[in-house]
Amino acid sequence: MATGNKKLKVGLAGLGRIGQVHMDNLLSGIQNVQLKSVCDPNISKKSKSAQQFRFYEDYSDMLQNEDLDAVIICTPTPLHFDMIEEAFSYGLHVFCEKPLDQYLDKIKKVHQFSIKSKLCLQVGFNRRFDPNFKNLFEQAKKGIIGDIHILKITSRDPLPPSLAYLKSSGGMFLDMSIHDFDMARYLTGSNVTKVYAQGAVLIDSSFNEAEDIDTAIIQLQFENGSLGVIDNSRKAVYGYDQRVELFGTKGMLQAHNNAPVNTTYYGAEGSQNSKPYNFFMDRYKSSFRYEIEGFISSIMNNAPSPVTALDAYKATAVAIAAKESLETNRPVSISTI
Amino acid sequence: MATGNKKLKVGLAGLGRIGQVHMDNLLSGIQNVQLKSVCDPNISKKSKSAQQFRFYEDYSDMLQNEDLDAVIICTPTPLHFDMIEEAFSYGLHVFCEKPLDQYLDKIKKVHQFSIKSKLCLQVGFNRRFDPNFKNLFEQAKKGIIGDIHILKITSRDPLPPSLAYLKSSGGMFLDMSIHDFDMARYLTGSNVTKVYAQGAVLIDSSFNEAEDIDTAIIQLQFENGSLGVIDNSRKAVYGYDQRVELFGTKGMLQAHNNAPVNTTYYGAEGSQNSKPYNFFMDRYKSSFRYEIEGFISSIMNNAPSPVTALDAYKATAVAIAAKESLETNRPVSISTI
Amino acid sequence: MATGNKKLKVGLAGLGRIGQVHMDNLLSGIQNVQLKSVCDPNISKKSKSAQQFRFYEDYSDMLQNEDLDAVIICTPTPLHFDMIEEAFSYGLHVFCEKPLDQYLDKIKKVHQFSIKSKLCLQVGFNRRFDPNFKNLFEQAKKGIIGDIHILKITSRDPLPPSLAYLKSSGGMFLDMSIHDFDMARYLTGSNVTKVYAQGAVLIDSSFNEAEDIDTAIIQLQFENGSLGVIDNSRKAVYGYDQRVELFGTKGMLQAHNNAPVNTTYYGAEGSQNSKPYNFFMDRYKSSFRYEIEGFISSIMNNAPSPVTALDAYKATAVAIAAKESLETNRPVSISTI
Amino acid sequence: MATGNKKLKVGLAGLGRIGQVHMDNLLSGIQNVQLKSVCDPNISKKSKSAQQFRFYEDYSDMLQNEDLDAVIICTPTPLHFDMIEEAFSYGLHVFCEKPLDQYLDKIKKVHQFSIKSKLCLQVGFNRRFDPNFKNLFEQAKKGIIGDIHILKITSRDPLPPSLAYLKSSGGMFLDMSIHDFDMARYLTGSNVTKVYAQGAVLIDSSFNEAEDIDTAIIQLQFENGSLGVIDNSRKAVYGYDQRVELFGTKGMLQAHNNAPVNTTYYGAEGSQNSKPYNFFMDRYKSSFRYEIEGFISSIMNNAPSPVTALDAYKATAVAIAAKESLETNRPVSISTI
Repeated sequence: MATGNKKLKVGLAGLGRIGQVHMDNLLSGIQNVQLKSVCDPNISKKSKSAQQFRFYEDYSDMLQNEDLDAVIICTPTPLHFDMIEEAFSYGLHVFCEKPLDQYLDKIKKVHQFSIKSKLCLQVGFNRRFDPNFKNLFEQAKKGIIGDIHILKITSRDPLPPSLAYLKSSGGMFLDMSIHDFDMARYLTGSNVTKVYAQGAVLIDSSFNEAEDIDTAIIQLQFENGSLGVIDNSRKAVYGYDQRVELFGTKGMLQAHNNAPVNTTYYGAEGSQNSKPYNFFMDRYKSSFRYEIEGFISSIMNNAPSPVTALDAYKATAVAIAAKESLETNRPVSISTI
Repeated sequence: MATGNKKLKVGLAGLGRIGQVHMDNLLSGIQNVQLKSVCDPNISKKSKSAQQFRFYEDYSDMLQNEDLDAVIICTPTPLHFDMIEEAFSYGLHVFCEKPLDQYLDKIKKVHQFSIKSKLCLQVGFNRRFDPNFKNLFEQAKKGIIGDIHILKITSRDPLPPSLAYLKSSGGMFLDMSIHDFDMARYLTGSNVTKVYAQGAVLIDSSFNEAEDIDTAIIQLQFENGSLGVIDNSRKAVYGYDQRVELFGTKGMLQAHNNAPVNTTYYGAEGSQNSKPYNFFMDRYKSSFRYEIEGFISSIMNNAPSPVTALDAYKATAVAIAAKESLETNRPVSISTI
Repeated sequence: MATGNKKLKVGLAGLGRIGQVHMDNLLSGIQNVQLKSVCDPNISKKSKSAQQFRFYEDYSDMLQNEDLDAVIICTPTPLHFDMIEEAFSYGLHVFCEKPLDQYLDKIKKVHQFSIKSKLCLQVGFNRRFDPNFKNLFEQAKKGIIGDIHILKITSRDPLPPSLAYLKSSGGMFLDMSIHDFDMARYLTGSNVTKVYAQGAVLIDSSFNEAEDIDTAIIQLQFENGSLGVIDNSRKAVYGYDQRVELFGTKGMLQAHNNAPVNTTYYGAEGSQNSKPYNFFMDRYKSSFRYEIEGFISSIMNNAPSPVTALDAYKATAVAIAAKESLETNRPVSISTI
Repeated sequence: MATGNKKLKVGLAGLGRIGQVHMDNLLSGIQNVQLKSVCDPNISKKSKSAQQFRFYEDYSDMLQNEDLDAVIICTPTPLHFDMIEEAFSYGLHVFCEKPLDQYLDKIKKVHQFSIKSKLCLQVGFNRRFDPNFKNLFEQAKKGIIGDIHILKITSRDPLPPSLAYLKSSGGMFLDMSIHDFDMARYLTGSNVTKVYAQGAVLIDSSFNEAEDIDTAIIQLQFENGSLGVIDNSRKAVYGYDQRVELFGTKGMLQAHNNAPVNTTYYGAEGSQNSKPYNFFMDRYKSSFRYEIEGFISSIMNNAPSPVTALDAYKATAVAIAAKESLETNRPVSISTI
């Protein structure tokens, strides 16, 4: 894109929870971008009439009538593929929320088109933009811990989602652990070659009903020979638990939980630290802003996207292998997926 | 102010460092407010012509030509008093940066006018809005540590200011410790009755040249009988050090430093935590936003200002007493100021 | 044992590193015990002539000539079985260092004799007596974290042993991880049912020469349905790393590393905490004393041993299963061992 | 002392709480020393007849009848002076518990005799031997924080002593803060020149009855120009609170509290760390052993005592100055004491 001083003209599709976050960010001070239009079939045109952007109920309508440079897609997963293809047909760059798609072949297809067309296709693995994890990545890359031997990710939700959500989620590995699979590749700089997963229903029998699990430990082997392990739970009563440990020849790096306040109370029972964030949108707030800034900046600078569809492909393959491992009680090679 | 759904129309005076911060906040998503105009004599009208607000080079000009509800004053201290009076004469609410003024009688005068006229006059003691300190205040108020016996504030800058700045700063107590004097009153909920201050030039002889000190320990006695101590330094090489400890009959509360990232590196030399923020505008970033939100909300709700000119009066009196204590090497009673 | 005020008369076999520790403890203030005699074939009688105990070069000699109640066996593993049997034949209680034996059938045999004869046979899994881990055990038992869902053990040595040691060690799982396997059973209060182990040589190729590994992640499934994971490394440059995390329905418990001093240095590069202990005999110092006190106390009170040969059997079975899992790249059921 | 391989023959006077601690340490493995005899007028000879040492009810008796090299005096303060003089008259080295005496002239007298006679006179300021504080001292001495600007000591007891104890204690400064006054000199390596003390009765009115205070903040100025502050309380409900902070040109050092276990519980209310030690004899356990080892070693090596009577003199002078400052509400120069 030949930019000069022009701002990137962006359209947003889908005003659910995450769509709202991106909209708020786009309206409050992100450089080099202008939110021109928003579409959502479930919101009446009226309620949005006074806004700074134009509002559409229909995505195709928006693409046809607006002169956009890029779209940000925050609609339900099954719609992603068609919406990406349509955006590409107009020559638009695309930011698409995760999961890109549940099927590897569809992910592959949009990825290849993105490569060929030189249109940016960024996937919403926002955690790569979290300051803690990014700091770990950068320090590890500088070699501060030497060669990585062991990666440990703890990723536990504060509360389980609804049964309805669970039933359409694709299961814990594709819905929740997929973030961790992407972090594993990102932080080690190496692809996963083998997965062994154990899972259990320990929190709530409704997970059985959804044919899902609520607790898991997933072991990984990486191309570079290092080992990894992820532990997941759908319910940590003490808050949203998001920690990473990288261990190597020259030391160890840890990313801790973040808390809204940083205070301690010392009483007769012991000392009590302030609780970590309880909600992923608070914990990862800055990362949502940074990923959009990264998207805009990669387009403005003709630079490669910081999270490509290939990254989505790789993480999804690990999730599918983990599912197979759980079902067969065997380690599964990624090469077989 | 009878508001309905109207937004508060605000003008901003002074576009130095802190004025810029308030401007950015007012332009990015604060509810119920519209930044109508900005004035600064040192910035050419041209450079601001394309903005969303009108720009003036002259403050009186702005007040005369704009239909404002409130002004935010970020100009140098010697200008504050006249600008507040002028704003009051137009019936405007005023947010004024700290220090309100160096002279107690002037502070008293604007405070009394604010009371009589029922116009809000809020002072920029932003630290009251810092999430850590606010959390301490609220927990202490709930009685979690019982009666307060000891207050300890550590407040150390990362780097000394320039000699030019020092010479016109009014000295460490009025320039730097004044924040701590306000925190002391705020956190204990009690007025200071007695001060004993020790100071020294230990960092840099340029402080001698400015007839100032760079290191101080200030002891406080409070109306409710509790004791306090503040330690200040102009240079902490490990970053901006802002901690508070409240000790009472039922326990202790501590507010720790904040850091941009929350990671640890474990190497052959020991474990190393990420550094705290190095700059007050990063450390207290959210507090600057919250204090403006507090200002707007108190006007919209006809509620008392969260930081009044009386608070500025009290903190300034402690600073003056500390100066006298340092000069005379005696404890000084606030009642004599 | 009918005790009255009598002290337990104890003999010690083997004056290597750990034998020396037990000797020092027995000579400095442990209640209700008297160290009557020590034997070691490699130490000349002369050098020990002035001691407070009688010295023997031969174990059988000592058992025949001394009127003992119990023996503490600190000799090399291959000697354990015969020495335990000989002690039992004299009706003596036995404390034996770990590993009790590498063969399950031998462990079973001495265990059964211990049960039948009502002679105490305690195994040197000292970590059960470590104050941190014991505190975790007790809090978990009280139900503070509800049902246990996930156990995580990090156990990393500061430095690899010599190649000679490695070659006769039985491999990482039987030599090093066996402590963790015992902790896993102890802390969860549940037997391991399934093991999946990954291992790698990442530190030093001499591990290949010893047909051993230096890095491992071992996944466990417990009888009560919970999941566990252990990660091991032979070389953590930042010190001896011994941490445990227990996660359950009502919360999480963590045992941290211990350090000889508890200080922090804050410098221009960040803050640096004092390093953890570097050596297992420092880190676990108190546990060696407490395990002997536990041994004496269980004999004096006719109470069951706090760590039986059955515990050794169970932990060894997990180690053997882990080895098989590593070799076959499959999860292995303990029931097949 | 010309030693060869001989052991130092030691007598102990006074079997109260602290005398018992020294006795236990002397009997369990301290090198180069033999506890030959103990005296205490309040303990019947009978109860001690079976011990490894000879027992006396009378101190003079013991000195006359035993061939000792040194005595350890753990009797009530008013007896110290005469007992030291008597020991010196036999040519014995002396370790004496703190406070050496309440009167500066008596301290001076025994100090001068110690210098002249080259007999060691060590005072029981055990905290100098605490690993945390010693580590601070050593790091500061190495220059890791450059020149010291600010010293902060927090020293709070878990529970107030009895009224009877208080009445004969000499007051908070001579009884409790004196340890902190010694630490201040030790850690900064500089003498105190000026003191300003504030005190209050906030915990319990029985302190009024004893004409004492229960809460204090004491400000110090040092010969080298640096500033210090000590805060004391007789009742910290969260445990024995013993922390130090040293701040200088190149950084900051902190010594934290120690805890018997090092674990954290994370529950729905936040995370809770294990409590610090509650009792000074647990918190400072190792320091009591190290100070006796230091005493023995300085005699064996003809080295200067690590804590001389001059140190007691200096700390006592600060305590007396603090008392005067509190009574007169003025800063007091040590040179006037």
